[in-house]
Amino acid sequence: MVTRHPATAEIRIEDVLSALGNPIRLNIARLLAVGGEHACGLVGTRLDTEVTKSTLTHHWRVLRDCGVIRQRPAGRENLLSLRRNDLDDRYPGLLDSILRGADAENPAVPALADTEPAQP
Amino acid sequence: MVTRHPATAEIRIEDVLSALGNPIRLNIARLLAVGGEHACGLVGTRLDTEVTKSTLTHHWRVLRDCGVIRQRPAGRENLLSLRRNDLDDRYPGLLDSILRGADAENPAVPALADTEPAQP
Repeated sequence: MVTRHPATAEIRIEDVLSALGNPIRLNIARLLAVGGEHACGLVGTRLDTEVTKSTLTHHWRVLRDCGVIRQRPAGRENLLSLRRNDLDDRYPGLLDSILRGADAENPAVPALADTEPAQP
Repeated sequence: MVTRHPATAEIRIEDVLSALGNPIRLNIARLLAVGGEHACGLVGTRLDTEVTKSTLTHHWRVLRDCGVIRQRPAGRENLLSLRRNDLDDRYPGLLDSILRGADAENPAVPALADTEPAQP
């Protein structure tokens, strides 16, 4: 699978806001904020809402195309990671303020260990 | 006209992000960031894109309902203001980082003077 990731300089603020202005995608960012790479299948199981695989695929694409996450093929799955350094470089303080706001307003997301392995 | 404004504690981060994740609404917030109240008609003329009145009305409503702007009837128009203090209280650093990002990426918006009067 060929994935497209914008370079840091190509990231656009309105695309990032639009992507994170969705409760499921915001929760995905919260899950990935622990750091590291995580299998998309595992991340999908940690969301508090039932989401079909095709809907998840759509959300990965939106988050990837706007520069919020990185998606790396690994076997039959993709590994996902939050582009925290790129976002912090481009929009200092933005991601932290969003994650703090989300944590304050929304139920806790089940933590992904930062060493959590990809699902088999 | 009866307008609904969420109390500060009712503002939701995903609604704010979704509202500002639109280039026109983001530009409206940039214009209003100068401070003070501004007639909606005047704000509409300062946008860099041609926007119909009904589309503008939709954008005012989205921004108002999510808590980003305050809308106050004054004669035949509405006066708009950015709820900067409320947003800064609820999401420290969020608005500043968004406005900085938007300023860096987008053409300058024509400044509204902070004392600019309502249009007749």
